[in-house]
Amino acid sequence: MENLIVQKYGGTSVANAERIMHVANIISNTCEKGKRVVVVVSAQGHTTDRLVEKARGISSDANRRELDMLLVTGEQQSAALMAMALQSMGHSAVSLNAAQVGIEATSVHGNAQIKRIQTKRLIEELEKGNIVIVAGFQGINRFGDMTTLGRGASDTTAVALAAVLEAELCEIYTDVDGIYTADPRIVPSAKKLDEISYDDMLELASSGAGVLHNRAVEMAKRYNVNLVLRSSMSGIPGTSIKEESKVERLAVSGLSIDRNVARISVTGLPDKPGVAHSIFNPLAKAKLNVDVILLSVGEGDNRDYCFTVHKQDLKTACEILEANKENIGYESLNSDENLAKLTIVGAGMANNSGVASAMFEALYECGVNIETICTSEIKITVLIGQQYITKAAKAVHDKFEPMFSKDYTETEET
Amino acid sequence: MENLIVQKYGGTSVANAERIMHVANIISNTCEKGKRVVVVVSAQGHTTDRLVEKARGISSDANRRELDMLLVTGEQQSAALMAMALQSMGHSAVSLNAAQVGIEATSVHGNAQIKRIQTKRLIEELEKGNIVIVAGFQGINRFGDMTTLGRGASDTTAVALAAVLEAELCEIYTDVDGIYTADPRIVPSAKKLDEISYDDMLELASSGAGVLHNRAVEMAKRYNVNLVLRSSMSGIPGTSIKEESKVERLAVSGLSIDRNVARISVTGLPDKPGVAHSIFNPLAKAKLNVDVILLSVGEGDNRDYCFTVHKQDLKTACEILEANKENIGYESLNSDENLAKLTIVGAGMANNSGVASAMFEALYECGVNIETICTSEIKITVLIGQQYITKAAKAVHDKFEPMFSKDYTETEET
Repeated sequence: MENLIVQKYGGTSVANAERIMHVANIISNTCEKGKRVVVVVSAQGHTTDRLVEKARGISSDANRRELDMLLVTGEQQSAALMAMALQSMGHSAVSLNAAQVGIEATSVHGNAQIKRIQTKRLIEELEKGNIVIVAGFQGINRFGDMTTLGRGASDTTAVALAAVLEAELCEIYTDVDGIYTADPRIVPSAKKLDEISYDDMLELASSGAGVLHNRAVEMAKRYNVNLVLRSSMSGIPGTSIKEESKVERLAVSGLSIDRNVARISVTGLPDKPGVAHSIFNPLAKAKLNVDVILLSVGEGDNRDYCFTVHKQDLKTACEILEANKENIGYESLNSDENLAKLTIVGAGMANNSGVASAMFEALYECGVNIETICTSEIKITVLIGQQYITKAAKAVHDKFEPMFSKDYTETEET
Repeated sequence: MENLIVQKYGGTSVANAERIMHVANIISNTCEKGKRVVVVVSAQGHTTDRLVEKARGISSDANRRELDMLLVTGEQQSAALMAMALQSMGHSAVSLNAAQVGIEATSVHGNAQIKRIQTKRLIEELEKGNIVIVAGFQGINRFGDMTTLGRGASDTTAVALAAVLEAELCEIYTDVDGIYTADPRIVPSAKKLDEISYDDMLELASSGAGVLHNRAVEMAKRYNVNLVLRSSMSGIPGTSIKEESKVERLAVSGLSIDRNVARISVTGLPDKPGVAHSIFNPLAKAKLNVDVILLSVGEGDNRDYCFTVHKQDLKTACEILEANKENIGYESLNSDENLAKLTIVGAGMANNSGVASAMFEALYECGVNIETICTSEIKITVLIGQQYITKAAKAVHDKFEPMFSKDYTETEET
């Protein structure tokens, strides 16, 4: 649809009446520029956490279908309040939940995927001149039951709506000014990026940058949605996330850290086909995400696997591996919770052979031991002791500072 | 459906986790008697009031469609929590909102009427062995938008479900033990009734007894639903509300008071056809409920109308009448907010000519002046000064005390 902008506002941006009125003003300004607007909202402030607490008060292991039925009310409330705010300013607005829009999703309660979005009601409302406010984070499965798309997934709702409605722009409003080369709270010299490629953003997000939901970026990439991340408070332009060919190429576009990581080592495994499958299949069945997988070369017939999981999944993962010990055929199982992950990302890295070396040098110079290394074409991840993460992040960022600018030219590092 | 019981639990009964578990126990006991159960729940405690406050924080005059979109979340939350509670006790349970059930209602946001209830999903879930928890107070209109049925209308949802599913019983669980001959907080000698006819209950409810939603009783009467009002706390049997022919006939079955009443007098009206219409049509258009209408006999060509409205509607009603002064053609408009309504109800009253007289005698004996009198076949209503209402209620109740028992036989009062 021509002239259409999708805007998404997170929980902090709609936390109370004052914030809602502030956001309504941004939306109103967008309309006054002749744009049609679809707005996606999250639940207010800590609403979702409070609802989860309520459920825990009833049952420590609440049924996921019922939990979703409970949680989706948070976004529906925000949507209704936002519609009221816009109406009080003289705009025509209407709020819609996932069932009313027809956001069809898979049945995996708590972590559903959007399958299809009906556009009939959306287009009808837009053509009536309404600003349409959509409750984020939710879908309906084929039984008409509410499902949620996972925490933070209102970003995904926004990008999916932008894709099906062929919006000219999808703006994700949040409480930060944009994507930074590192977390400014940890690395004070971090710089805001004007633009970043989808791939670099994906690597940054999956390494724990946490400002933008990963599935949203993947979907934006697949459907080529123009995505902008910006602050609802500051008015600063933000960071544009787009196709790599349209982005100025930086050797390193950012650095991210993740403290919520735990490492599991499975050692003394036979060197034969099917071993990896026997380890990771039961974990996948339990919906545990596994990151950074390393297979040691080992000696003789013995091989070791080492991988990371989210810290909260460590206990479950170890229990599953213990239960499958005989089938997998390992000798010992070890885990380490005192690690953190430091990642640098950059699409230009592949042509800069010195990037890895420079990163290791920076860590060496500040006396940090590297526990594990894992690299891809556009990122380098190291696991280091958790107590060193701030020091290490600063040292690595400072080392790459010249590369975070557009006029940086490829140089050979030693 | 055979062996089916519909149970409704109000906001106080589901106010917190402890109460929800308590209610889940009652439901569980019902299941163990071999019954299938459909449960209707209200929003927890003061949730609806808090949501209304939130809306007021955004707009003093929130759009009714959006307000409904906001309010329906309260019941959906209760329903999900109740399903979790039953599941934690080992029962199969599923919560459904109005859209999922298919509770089709009119489009009057905030005061919609149920038009039709789809039974497909309900029956499917019951046949799967599920206890079905339905979010009360809500419906969907023909556009698929959420509408609410008016405050307290979860009772109506329960009776409507009992009607379409042909349940053997509809139990309304509340925080009182049953229907009393008068409000026990005001008249300590008030007695609990074991049974009451639909008509007597309707008169009691519409006169302000407030324990059971009037539309629920009307619907129960129309579809002949066996209705029981009882406490979720005490375990006492409660009051059965049924067809008049099945109820022991009492001359007077109860007394109710209503303090939220204001009287409007429109005087100096021409004595010609169409005057009543010119007064009450604009009020009806504004959805204002008018009660107790009296037309004075008057002198000559001048006639006076006097009627009551809900206290909160007084200002609006007077504004409407002033705006229509020329069209109605009255001389003066007066209102009085310092009145209260005292009503006695009883299907046996028609055959007891002394009932009205005994009521007036009781009021005379305690020195209370009667401002207005209005009677129907089964009730007598008086308006008196608000400051006298407690004294008057006690005096009238005591006068009729012998009549509140089943072995009372008709006697002539003087």
